[in-house]
Amino acid sequence: ADVKKIAVIAGDGIGPEVVAEAEKVLRKTEEVFGYSFETEHALFGGIAIDEKGTPLPEETLRVCKSADAVLLGAVGGPKWDNNSKELRPETGLLGIRKELGLFSNLRPAVVFDCLKEASTLKPEVLEGTDLMVVRELTGGIYFGDKLRRQGAHGEEAVDTCVYNVTEIERIARQAFEIAQGRRKKLASVDKANVLETSRLWRETVNRIAPEYPDVELEHVLVDNCAMQLLRRPSSFDVIVTENMFGDILSDEAAMLTGSIGMLASASLGEGSFGLYEPVHGSAPDIAGQGLANPIATILSLALMFRTTFGYSEAADAIESAIARVLDEGHRTADIAVDKSKALSTTQMGDLIVAAI
Amino acid sequence: ADVKKIAVIAGDGIGPEVVAEAEKVLRKTEEVFGYSFETEHALFGGIAIDEKGTPLPEETLRVCKSADAVLLGAVGGPKWDNNSKELRPETGLLGIRKELGLFSNLRPAVVFDCLKEASTLKPEVLEGTDLMVVRELTGGIYFGDKLRRQGAHGEEAVDTCVYNVTEIERIARQAFEIAQGRRKKLASVDKANVLETSRLWRETVNRIAPEYPDVELEHVLVDNCAMQLLRRPSSFDVIVTENMFGDILSDEAAMLTGSIGMLASASLGEGSFGLYEPVHGSAPDIAGQGLANPIATILSLALMFRTTFGYSEAADAIESAIARVLDEGHRTADIAVDKSKALSTTQMGDLIVAAI
Ligand SMILES: CC(C)[C@H](C(=O)O)[C@@H](O)C(=O)O
Ligand SMILES: CC(C)[C@H](C(=O)O)[C@@H](O)C(=O)O
Repeated sequence: ADVKKIAVIAGDGIGPEVVAEAEKVLRKTEEVFGYSFETEHALFGGIAIDEKGTPLPEETLRVCKSADAVLLGAVGGPKWDNNSKELRPETGLLGIRKELGLFSNLRPAVVFDCLKEASTLKPEVLEGTDLMVVRELTGGIYFGDKLRRQGAHGEEAVDTCVYNVTEIERIARQAFEIAQGRRKKLASVDKANVLETSRLWRETVNRIAPEYPDVELEHVLVDNCAMQLLRRPSSFDVIVTENMFGDILSDEAAMLTGSIGMLASASLGEGSFGLYEPVHGSAPDIAGQGLANPIATILSLALMFRTTFGYSEAADAIESAIARVLDEGHRTADIAVDKSKALSTTQMGDLIVAAI
Repeated sequence: ADVKKIAVIAGDGIGPEVVAEAEKVLRKTEEVFGYSFETEHALFGGIAIDEKGTPLPEETLRVCKSADAVLLGAVGGPKWDNNSKELRPETGLLGIRKELGLFSNLRPAVVFDCLKEASTLKPEVLEGTDLMVVRELTGGIYFGDKLRRQGAHGEEAVDTCVYNVTEIERIARQAFEIAQGRRKKLASVDKANVLETSRLWRETVNRIAPEYPDVELEHVLVDNCAMQLLRRPSSFDVIVTENMFGDILSDEAAMLTGSIGMLASASLGEGSFGLYEPVHGSAPDIAGQGLANPIATILSLALMFRTTFGYSEAADAIESAIARVLDEGHRTADIAVDKSKALSTTQMGDLIVAAI
C-alpha cells in the first residue's frame, strides 16, 4: 500500500495534548479507509530550545524533509519570550518556513454555527462569512536584510522588504486557483500608493489575471481592507497578500469569525508538501490540564488529507464527524456555555474518533 | 490682538463644502470669543494637479509654513488614480507631511451615541470605547529608499524601513504625555519578534518608560493588536505605533466605532504647529450636492483650537454645540435614519454656528 509519511511536531503548551487527539483520528482513518501512515515525532520550538539548545534542530528539519506533510501543534510560551533572538520559538517558525520552502499560508476564516455568538460582530454582519486569506510566507520584510547602525540621529535599525516577480506570480497563481474552486472572487491587497513592492505586486497580479477570466479580481489597499473586513466580511472570498499584511489581516479575519479557537491553517510549498497547524497558540495557561480543544488540530489534519494527499473522502468524514459531535451539543471548556458540562481534550477526541 | 494664521486647504470632492462650514464656525468663534484669525487658501491634491501640474505646489507649502495651523478638507478621487506617481494626490500628502515635519498623527476613535448602531460590533462590546491611535508619520517604510532592479528571479522591488532612536523617542514621548492626560494606559504596538526596527522601537519605549511612572505600558504585537481591537476595543486608551502599522490599525479602530464619518484627526510637528483634517475621504460620488456631513471637519477645527492654539474654551463650545444639534435630532443624510428629513451640508453648518 501507499504509505504516507507524516512528521508530527507536538511543540509547546497544549500542543502535545491536541496533537495526540489528531493522531488518534489519523489511526482511525487507517482502519476505516485503509490508508497507511507512518508518523515520526520531532522536537521544535520551546521544547527544542530546552532539550537541544535550538528551536529548529537539524534532526527536525531532516524528519520534515523526508515526510510528505507535517502536523504541528503549537509553539512558544512566556518561558522563552525573553531569550535572545536565536533562542526563541518564533525564530524556529521562520526557519522552518524558509527551509521547507513554505511560501504560501492558507488561513480559512469560517464561522462555526455554535460559535456565532462568540464573535464581537453582529450576527447579521457575520452571516455568510467564509473567506480564505492566502498569505505569502517566505518573502517581504520578514526575510529581507536587517541591520543596526549608528546614524546622524543616534542608533538606527533597518528592515528591508523585497519581492521579485517570481515570488509574486507563484502566490498569485495559487490564489487565483483557490478562488476558482470557491466563489471566484479574489481581493489582492497591497499598499500600491506608497510601496514599490506593492506596485510590483499589483502589476504582476494584473499581468496574470487574464489567465483566470472566470475570477473577479479587485485590488484593495491594506488600510481599506482592515476596514472592509469589519464592515462587510461576507463579501470577501479569497484575499491574497504579502507576508506582513497577511500576518495582520489573517488574524483580524480569524478573530472576527468568533471561531478562532477552531480554525485550521496550511502552509504549502512546491508540489503537494505542506505543514498543517491550528491557528490558535500554545495557551500555556491551560497546558497539561486536559482543557484544550483539539478540534482545530483535527481540522488541520483534515486539511492535510484534502490538500496534500487528495484524501477528500476522509477529510469529509472528519469534518462531518466534528459537525455531528458539535450538533449533539458536546463542548470543550473554551466553547461550552455551561462549563460544568465541558468535556476534556481526550473525551472530545474520543467522540470525534467514534463518529468517523 | 493675537492674530492666528490658518492655511485652509479645501482639496477635492466634498472637501470645499465641508471646509466652508468649518470656516463659518471659525468666524463665529471670533465674534463669541474675540479671537482673530487670518485665513489663506491654498491648492492641494487633485485640484492642484489640474491647475498647477503638481499635487503640492511650492506656493501651498509656503502658505502652510507661514501659518500657525492648517485645516484640510479631503484629497483624491478616481480622476487622478491612474496618474503616474508624481501626479497623484497621495504623493502630495506624503510630501506635505515630510516638508512640514508632521511626525505624529493623532487619530481619536470615539463612539457617537447617535451612531452606536452604525457599528458592526455588538453594542455591549463597543460600550466605553474611546481610544487614540498615535501614529508615527514621517518615518518607516513610507519614506525609506525604494527601488526596482533586475534580480536572479526577474524584476524585483525593494522598500526600506528605517527608524532611528530620535524618531522613536519623539513619538513615544508624545504618546506617553497624551496618555497622562487621558486614562494613563499606553499600548506600544510593534512586531519585535520579527523586525529589527520593532526591536529598536521596543527598547526605546522601554528606556523612556520610567520617566512616565504613572502610565501603564504594555507591548502588543501588531497581529495581536488587530485582533484585540476587535475583541476588547474599550480596553485600549492610547496606542502608539510606527507609520505602516498605524495606517492599518487607525483605520481599523476608526471603522469599529461605527462613527468614521464623524472623526477628526491631527498631524503634529515640533512645537504647536499642526494640520487638522477629517478622517473621511473626499467622497467624489456625493461631491457638490450639499449632501456631505461637515461635522468631522468642524471637530477637526475644535481639535486645532485645543491643540495648536490652546483655545480650549472655544473647542469645548464647538464640541458641545455639535452634541446639542445632534441631540435635537438633526442629521445629514449619511447619519439620518429618515433620509427624507436629512439636512444639507450648509443647514448642518448653520445649526452648529447658531448653537455656539
Ligand atoms: C510568531 C510569528 C513570527 C508569526 C508570524 O508573524 O508569521 C505568527 O504571528 C504567525 O502568524 O504565524
Ligand atoms: C493616502 C495614503 C498615502 C495615506 C497613508 O497611507 O498614510 C492614507 O491612507 C492615510 O492614512 O492618511
